Amino acid sequence: MRAARYHARHDIRIDEVPEPELRPGTVAIDVAWCGICGTDLHEYLEGPIFIPPAGSPHPISGEQAPVTLGHELSGTITALGDGVEGLEVGQGVVVEPYIVRDDVDTGPGQEYQLSKDMNFIGLGGRGGGLAEKIVVQRRWGHPVGDVPLDQAALIEPLSVGHHAFVRSGAKAGDVAIVGGAGPIGLLTAAVLRASGLTVYVSELSAARKQMARDTGVADDVFDPRDGDVAQKVRDLTGGRGADVGFECSSVAPVLDMLLDAVRPGGVVVNVSIWGHKPEVDLPALVLKEIDLRGTIGYANDHPAAIALVQNGKVDLAPFITARIGLDGLITEGFEQLITNNEHHVKILVNPRAR
Amino acid sequence: MRAARYHARHDIRIDEVPEPELRPGTVAIDVAWCGICGTDLHEYLEGPIFIPPAGSPHPISGEQAPVTLGHELSGTITALGDGVEGLEVGQGVVVEPYIVRDDVDTGPGQEYQLSKDMNFIGLGGRGGGLAEKIVVQRRWGHPVGDVPLDQAALIEPLSVGHHAFVRSGAKAGDVAIVGGAGPIGLLTAAVLRASGLTVYVSELSAARKQMARDTGVADDVFDPRDGDVAQKVRDLTGGRGADVGFECSSVAPVLDMLLDAVRPGGVVVNVSIWGHKPEVDLPALVLKEIDLRGTIGYANDHPAAIALVQNGKVDLAPFITARIGLDGLITEGFEQLITNNEHHVKILVNPRAR
Repeated sequence: MRAARYHARHDIRIDEVPEPELRPGTVAIDVAWCGICGTDLHEYLEGPIFIPPAGSPHPISGEQAPVTLGHELSGTITALGDGVEGLEVGQGVVVEPYIVRDDVDTGPGQEYQLSKDMNFIGLGGRGGGLAEKIVVQRRWGHPVGDVPLDQAALIEPLSVGHHAFVRSGAKAGDVAIVGGAGPIGLLTAAVLRASGLTVYVSELSAARKQMARDTGVADDVFDPRDGDVAQKVRDLTGGRGADVGFECSSVAPVLDMLLDAVRPGGVVVNVSIWGHKPEVDLPALVLKEIDLRGTIGYANDHPAAIALVQNGKVDLAPFITARIGLDGLITEGFEQLITNNEHHVKILVNPRAR
Repeated sequence: MRAARYHARHDIRIDEVPEPELRPGTVAIDVAWCGICGTDLHEYLEGPIFIPPAGSPHPISGEQAPVTLGHELSGTITALGDGVEGLEVGQGVVVEPYIVRDDVDTGPGQEYQLSKDMNFIGLGGRGGGLAEKIVVQRRWGHPVGDVPLDQAALIEPLSVGHHAFVRSGAKAGDVAIVGGAGPIGLLTAAVLRASGLTVYVSELSAARKQMARDTGVADDVFDPRDGDVAQKVRDLTGGRGADVGFECSSVAPVLDMLLDAVRPGGVVVNVSIWGHKPEVDLPALVLKEIDLRGTIGYANDHPAAIALVQNGKVDLAPFITARIGLDGLITEGFEQLITNNEHHVKILVNPRAR
């Protein structure tokens, strides 16, 4: 079958690879759609980061570059391995793309995203969504019911937003400020709004501001060039400030704005991935007793994220900004995200199409 | 009466000032002892910081430099204003040195330390402990029972440590790593050890390492020059890492060490005051889902801190490293803390002595 494989920085190839083998406890899936993630782009431009480079196999998967890419995938179950229960052939599913040790408990309340040497399917090995087929352990398959499979490919980043929401401890009626309206910022805002919060978004890009408005994920959108965003948030909250902030930009001044914009005793969740150590306004964190909380991935968030879409509380369709075949992955996918980033939220790849 | 007043940076004078007036709802105290705090030193060397400079009166106290210094004070009640209940003339007390608006609720669970324009008695006005007498609102007076008044002067910084412990959410049996064994680091460690935690301390100074050992506040003391402190903590916790870290140094590499030393899902409380925005290892905070929590002052922590001393769980005597009169404030106090800092924990001033 065909698969997009990461060989090295700037070297992603469409290779012919063997089909994955169905084993006991696993599920075979024909991939329908796979989104391109900012992480994939970082791996292409600056990596390998999560990807185990040639010569350094991952301690759990045992794999190293070249590895198949793609971790935001949906598809249809084609076969069930021995002992698999609770899923059926023909069902639409999404994959929670974790690589963790077999003895790691992934039950309710378990923080398996923090388990030692955790990595992601589609980065650290075990196949990926940018291939025609994939086989995953039963526990990573989540049925999506009547959610269309193109939208379902966005359940993975939506689960990131849901996890950040859970980490924040925020509740309906709270006021949130989201820093950055890229894919993760928009989908985090979508979860917050669907959960009954008032949501303000800060963003510089005209296209992204428009997207935040058009998709209805924000009660209002502020441009830092038009004035002090933190002050605007205070003005809108009777001088108090937001209850929670979400850093979705990897830009140090945005994080500092959030520390300024939240109320004393407030929470700022860092959802973005940093490639460096930023300067952080710790004086503000101290004097306002802010909690700055890291968040990575998801943990038992997929069912809740799927329910938000099934119940009509989140509409993922507007976030799909292009659909391409596997042969266009670099030219119509990665290069578009590099040169025309702000006009895209999610580019979906059909790995079974040319 | 005589009072040490801050006029400007490098300009603290022993002035003759009027005695404070007893008003309804207030308590008159003859000061017994007042500690010199690192904050006082910062005001002397780099201030004014908390102190309202001449021309900029504080919005609550209405006062500006010159103001009386000293916020770590103990003394004896000499008179009660109309309507004061629950205190008696002759009682030993400590002062919780807050300046907050009169309508701010200071009841249980209230976060009055975060109220708008909060400042401290002895910095923002309303007298100070470096004077013979002080009058404070009833709510700021805490009886100390049989705790000697010299030790009682350390209840204020001990309350800072108690508040940091409460903010951490840590519990008996947890493992803590404290970064820095200055006065706040030592007293935070004392609270943690008294609360049933295993406590490791990281410190460079030979004298401070010795103090951490001699006072029994640490299960072990590590010097970063002797090897990776975070790795040592992991080795001592079966590879897991500490449950909580406490930043008490205002040194960026120490904060990063704590982010490295705590377990995934762990908590780091920032107890120190930063004069700048440090670079922070947010990649570690993200990948381990760490909570970095700011803490300032105390809020209903004084009774618990006093109880720790009354019950014999914390012995404050070893932390008193000098006793001086008011005339020696600069030469035997501030200058000692500047030139000979690491050999001192707490220098106590008797403002009624020459």
